[in-house]
Amino acid sequence: MSKEIGITVKKNENFSEWYTQVVLKAQLADYAPVKGLIVLRPYGYSIWESLKSSIDQKLKATGHENAFLPVLIPESLLSKEADHFAGFTPEVFWVTHSGDAEIGDRLALRPTSETLAYSMYSKWIKSWRDLPLKINFWNSALRAEIKSTKLLLRTSEFLWQEGHTVHSTKGEAEEEVMIILEIYKKTVEEELAIPVITGKKSEKEKFVGAVYTTTMESIMPDGKALQMGTSHFLGQNFSKPFDVKFLDKQNIETFGWQTSWGVSWRLIGALVMLHGDDRGLVLPPRVAPIQVVIVPIYYSAEDKEAILNKSMELKATLVKRDLRIQIDARDEFTPGYKFNDWEMKGVPLRIEIGPKDLAKGKMVLVRRDNLKKIDLTFDKTEEGVIKALNNIQQTLFENAKRLLNERTTRTTDFDEFKRDLEKGMFVYSPWCGDQKCEEIVKESTGADIRVIPFDEKKTDSPCIICKNSGKMEVIFARSY
Amino acid sequence: MSKEIGITVKKNENFSEWYTQVVLKAQLADYAPVKGLIVLRPYGYSIWESLKSSIDQKLKATGHENAFLPVLIPESLLSKEADHFAGFTPEVFWVTHSGDAEIGDRLALRPTSETLAYSMYSKWIKSWRDLPLKINFWNSALRAEIKSTKLLLRTSEFLWQEGHTVHSTKGEAEEEVMIILEIYKKTVEEELAIPVITGKKSEKEKFVGAVYTTTMESIMPDGKALQMGTSHFLGQNFSKPFDVKFLDKQNIETFGWQTSWGVSWRLIGALVMLHGDDRGLVLPPRVAPIQVVIVPIYYSAEDKEAILNKSMELKATLVKRDLRIQIDARDEFTPGYKFNDWEMKGVPLRIEIGPKDLAKGKMVLVRRDNLKKIDLTFDKTEEGVIKALNNIQQTLFENAKRLLNERTTRTTDFDEFKRDLEKGMFVYSPWCGDQKCEEIVKESTGADIRVIPFDEKKTDSPCIICKNSGKMEVIFARSY
Repeated sequence: MSKEIGITVKKNENFSEWYTQVVLKAQLADYAPVKGLIVLRPYGYSIWESLKSSIDQKLKATGHENAFLPVLIPESLLSKEADHFAGFTPEVFWVTHSGDAEIGDRLALRPTSETLAYSMYSKWIKSWRDLPLKINFWNSALRAEIKSTKLLLRTSEFLWQEGHTVHSTKGEAEEEVMIILEIYKKTVEEELAIPVITGKKSEKEKFVGAVYTTTMESIMPDGKALQMGTSHFLGQNFSKPFDVKFLDKQNIETFGWQTSWGVSWRLIGALVMLHGDDRGLVLPPRVAPIQVVIVPIYYSAEDKEAILNKSMELKATLVKRDLRIQIDARDEFTPGYKFNDWEMKGVPLRIEIGPKDLAKGKMVLVRRDNLKKIDLTFDKTEEGVIKALNNIQQTLFENAKRLLNERTTRTTDFDEFKRDLEKGMFVYSPWCGDQKCEEIVKESTGADIRVIPFDEKKTDSPCIICKNSGKMEVIFARSY
Repeated sequence: MSKEIGITVKKNENFSEWYTQVVLKAQLADYAPVKGLIVLRPYGYSIWESLKSSIDQKLKATGHENAFLPVLIPESLLSKEADHFAGFTPEVFWVTHSGDAEIGDRLALRPTSETLAYSMYSKWIKSWRDLPLKINFWNSALRAEIKSTKLLLRTSEFLWQEGHTVHSTKGEAEEEVMIILEIYKKTVEEELAIPVITGKKSEKEKFVGAVYTTTMESIMPDGKALQMGTSHFLGQNFSKPFDVKFLDKQNIETFGWQTSWGVSWRLIGALVMLHGDDRGLVLPPRVAPIQVVIVPIYYSAEDKEAILNKSMELKATLVKRDLRIQIDARDEFTPGYKFNDWEMKGVPLRIEIGPKDLAKGKMVLVRRDNLKKIDLTFDKTEEGVIKALNNIQQTLFENAKRLLNERTTRTTDFDEFKRDLEKGMFVYSPWCGDQKCEEIVKESTGADIRVIPFDEKKTDSPCIICKNSGKMEVIFARSY
């Protein structure tokens, strides 16, 4: 593989450039003609389809249904909840014309659909019989990125799902918030092999319009935190302006209790950053579009036929076990080129078969995560391949967990706090609960409170900033 | 069921109002706050998911992959193919601002993605090794409806899929056009129970920018034709302006041969119009969100327990056969109300069980299509229910086929031709091939050439308009 085709920088030398090269060269995504917009290519989209299917099944199993909302929201509707509107307007794309005609009430491209969804819910919900209403939307959101854009992490349009529910009681809505966060955590940990910390956002960092926001956070190899998904308790903040109310069993008109929540394709960005290496992408088997690539190796026409036949036989055996297999029988490339190519694309497991292997009744498995080779006899194909894939999935998760531990620290000393943030750590420190202290941290270090962990420790240690009595221990970090 | 909840007009008395009521009251879709835009509600979206899954499987089995393109296309890109641009601009939504900032090259909301897709393909394709490139996009298209809008048939944003392929030879691209049309026809006939006629569009009616367009057409109960899906041969019309070229095996630079194709949620509209009746929706079992509803009937607490237990047992048995079953155990409604409700929602099969049935070891099946009742003993549950569902699917297709035959006629006489169009028929008539004659038909009758059937008969009969020698027999009709 020539230098231009492969990844030309090392992950620990120029992380940002490494990331961009991996996303582009592994053909996950590409830049669209408009600045800030990207295209998700088939290889990247296939990962999104895996993730989507995993989340969709869990949502349906817990009584959620899918539906469709248009992308256009009238300005008058978007502005009904004032905080929400103020939060989003700087990044809204506005449609002002259709054909040659100017549009009276200009139309926003959905930055998020609370306002539109709830104007519909208000028509649909009449009594307690219509509740809970739990609808999810697989669509894209549009928020003009004013600052720098970054493939899959910060783009002006992104694929996501947004869920919007209405419940008859506060308790049920708060339970929903947690059910969803648990679905997200389970999906990200089990499918993407990324460990996360869950908890609440501070008042300053919560979703505009929410009563509170729960979040799952992780830390990337460059020491920046990444928000991986959020689930919001909206209380009655939207149900009142949007008139989402119902007659309860006593025939009393009551405002609904609401939640909203979402994850986006940024999860694919996290996957790239956490698991990738100097050779390129490393994909967890559960979401890999191709889980196993078979590279037949031969130098004579006679060998070629025998080895291709064996390859097809192996593929047929593995396809029966619902594995995603590809044979790379391209004549125009050498085996070495193919190895590099599939390593760059992150295929979890490679099977090599040459004439000597065939004679010995075996193949060679090469794991993408640690590049170790394993001899496997043909009679053990199924169990050997499945075991290796499970092993890779588990190893990736453990490695990511180790990274998270290495990047997590705890201090009550402000100088150490600043040094740790500088090093790119998740820093647990005591906080008094005052937003002013949060702002001082932001100004002096660039870090935010990423998450107030659910297992937060009440603490008597003084606040890391004001030295007043600390209320709780929270996690500070710089972020994407 | 009160009159307001049910359908208040008859299908054959006020077809248009009947259609609107069914779509709204069966909760398939609803009007969004912006004129011309609609929301697809969970019940309608579930039908779309069935259709989508059926088409998606067929596309993947024939080597197509999915991907994502942004919704925003710069005006400069959209205008690269002149005919195409002229065809779409009157209905384009334009984004002119992001936040408070004006955008230089204003952005179109995708009316269709040929231009954007091919600007990307031009970067991705280098040699014959990269071909064929066969990518499909599940997204929505935006075309401002200037005239009247109609739920699911004519809306300013609609869900669809658009496929875009590049091939190294003309022959392979033309073959692709037909493979896709065949996938569409099979899906519509087998899943939606709607028979279609396939063929080519005339030059006047083809897709702007295509060499030719193939189509599948059907006729609705009100005598208007509906275009159900199209597959276009683009030749090199786009590959040249968009520079979609490749090095062939002789290392010669060659422009690609292209196709594009799509079907939309309008198929759900066709389903409603064709199969529905005065009671509401009638859904073919293959796409019904709920295939069987069980309505337990009881008047005492003792009966209630026994009958609910039996209902749950039946449900468990049927769920194992991958059927979609719901028990309607709502205490606040009478059985009669429930019957009407599920009939309006078009559930293909209802199971009634009352105390007398239970005593006799049987249930009553009620078919939605013909309202016939069938006694079924519990020991025959699975085979009886599956047989009934298959029967309903088949009957709906046969009924629709009969309608198509009744609404198809053939004439060489212009007066009869006009009378038949007035009656709302598919009229087979000879045509000389001249666009002027087509325009005369349009002006004098409002009808178009809907399709030049693939099994077109060469004819010597004179053209229905100019009386010159007819070249072929084509189908004229008025349309949506």
